[in-house]
Amino acid sequence: MNEVAFRTVWWEAGAVCLLDQTKLPRERATVRCTTVEEVDAAIGSMVVRGAPAIGVTAAYGMALAARESSMTDPAALLEELAAAKATLDAARPTAVNLSWATSRMLRAALETADVPVSEVAARLLVEAHAVREEDERACREIVGHGAALLRSGARVLTHCNAGGLATAGYGTALAPIKTAHALGKKLHVLVDETRPFLQGSRLTAWELQRAGVDQTLITDNAAGHFMRRGEVDCVIVGADRIAANGDVANKIGTYTLAVLARAHSIPFYVAAPTSTVDMSIASGDGIPIEERDPAEVTHLAGQPLAPEGVTAAHPAFDVTPNDLVAAIITEKGVVEPPFDTHLRRVMDAASAVR
Amino acid sequence: MNEVAFRTVWWEAGAVCLLDQTKLPRERATVRCTTVEEVDAAIGSMVVRGAPAIGVTAAYGMALAARESSMTDPAALLEELAAAKATLDAARPTAVNLSWATSRMLRAALETADVPVSEVAARLLVEAHAVREEDERACREIVGHGAALLRSGARVLTHCNAGGLATAGYGTALAPIKTAHALGKKLHVLVDETRPFLQGSRLTAWELQRAGVDQTLITDNAAGHFMRRGEVDCVIVGADRIAANGDVANKIGTYTLAVLARAHSIPFYVAAPTSTVDMSIASGDGIPIEERDPAEVTHLAGQPLAPEGVTAAHPAFDVTPNDLVAAIITEKGVVEPPFDTHLRRVMDAASAVR
Repeated sequence: MNEVAFRTVWWEAGAVCLLDQTKLPRERATVRCTTVEEVDAAIGSMVVRGAPAIGVTAAYGMALAARESSMTDPAALLEELAAAKATLDAARPTAVNLSWATSRMLRAALETADVPVSEVAARLLVEAHAVREEDERACREIVGHGAALLRSGARVLTHCNAGGLATAGYGTALAPIKTAHALGKKLHVLVDETRPFLQGSRLTAWELQRAGVDQTLITDNAAGHFMRRGEVDCVIVGADRIAANGDVANKIGTYTLAVLARAHSIPFYVAAPTSTVDMSIASGDGIPIEERDPAEVTHLAGQPLAPEGVTAAHPAFDVTPNDLVAAIITEKGVVEPPFDTHLRRVMDAASAVR
Repeated sequence: MNEVAFRTVWWEAGAVCLLDQTKLPRERATVRCTTVEEVDAAIGSMVVRGAPAIGVTAAYGMALAARESSMTDPAALLEELAAAKATLDAARPTAVNLSWATSRMLRAALETADVPVSEVAARLLVEAHAVREEDERACREIVGHGAALLRSGARVLTHCNAGGLATAGYGTALAPIKTAHALGKKLHVLVDETRPFLQGSRLTAWELQRAGVDQTLITDNAAGHFMRRGEVDCVIVGADRIAANGDVANKIGTYTLAVLARAHSIPFYVAAPTSTVDMSIASGDGIPIEERDPAEVTHLAGQPLAPEGVTAAHPAFDVTPNDLVAAIITEKGVVEPPFDTHLRRVMDAASAVR
């Protein structure tokens, strides 16, 4: 596959660097974070977004916490790291990759109990790099499994951005599309603009344009129209958290697409690394749904769209029940129903490898 | 019901006056049209929108055409009026109210073949006033039939704007809501923002706010989420054209809502005057769907949302098949399935009255 020509999250000169996704596609700016608070703010304000990408960012945030610390006592340092984890986990509640990554970093810190405190920071930076590299590898492996599902000529509908911008650099749902295209398959992508943050029109359209993939941008409410006219062959989206039974939390609007896909007998695929699977939660009912600032619905770029004082709601995610999902494409293979037993098998294999 | 405190389309001092709906809610400006070309432009650019409102506007446009004319020969005047009708009908193809109104005006002109040409203009202005008054009356009668469907405590979801702004002043889908509220019923309205023109956040939210109705503005893609959580009791929308079999063309996104409503066993109501029913078209397949400028999707208020050069599609309407519609609320009563026979009966009665 083509290497991506942009970086989403990387470490440079003692800082977590982020491609500012609030400014794309108009401006390509970098945000440098040197404190946990800055990382927390960057995740909360969606300078970086996408479940895998915020997981990697949080991992670097934990490495920063260790670097920043003036503690000389291992127990005090661990306490500081636990506080940093609590801060970062709360930045956005739905994507499990955040707490998955910070938990892993905290475990790595605990394992360094026998090394000098001064070396913990270095050890955690190595671990954060590993989180990033594993995410890149998982995305590449998702490509291998996912591209086979896309026949030449397919018209694919996607929602939000599950591309390189949502991960450490390759993408989940978009990666198989870009690779299939690079392999010469003729694909056409219908891109949902994805209100209110416009990840589709701002980010996915940008990525697909750079990759040379044929695309048409549509408003979210037009998806049903195109499906009814027979112009969609499959839907492929990312995920922010997948419960043990295969229920999928993803960007608001995903559930609507899944209902529409079912009504039109169109396969609905979810592409996500196993770091997005949360075996501790039995079903989607247990997934916390982030409620973001309603001003993101009533305003755009600071300009009011609605009359002053109007109440708005902004659930940032929804839950798609497993019975609407045709398959979950992970780095460990394509998981098909029944998801409870099949996800369990994949996750056991994944943890055995780690 | 409360009288509305704004006018959508009216005649004043030789001009068709329109409340400029492209500027709401920020600014309350009036556009005055004194030529057919100005009326055509106002309809095309959505200064006025909503099927009944553009029907009334076009009727006044035909009256303007007669006033403007310098013809002294009846046949030449009729030819000019036919040309004006062709211009106005082409302004927006989906709403049938446009050609319904211009046909009616042309018929009225034909009936004046025995009066001096100089009197035709006055006769057509009277007819245009009648079109407006009949629309107001139809809306009031829709209220009577529709408000009974809304029990106190109901949580109602609506899409686009089928309010006073979409008609000569009362509204179709919104009118029963505002009236039920005024009668003391406790309603909560979920308002779809309705991309890309934002008729929901800009116009419906404005109308409901002025009427004091409890509302929550949401992105279009969130409707499924709220339905799945059991927070929607019914959906009520307007219509731009209803085929003889009850298929409904309405604002893009309506079909998606109807599919979602069916999946959640929520009744899906359509409110429209009989001037929106087109008995000459057997099914929704025959309804022309307007494709508007994709720049309305890629840009907002002149600002680009998507990367330059990205292809977008902007179908302005979609078709909801009759099997997803619980009832069509007209001024002649609530029409239930089977729509083919029941619509025929209502339309025969309606034309018998005229």
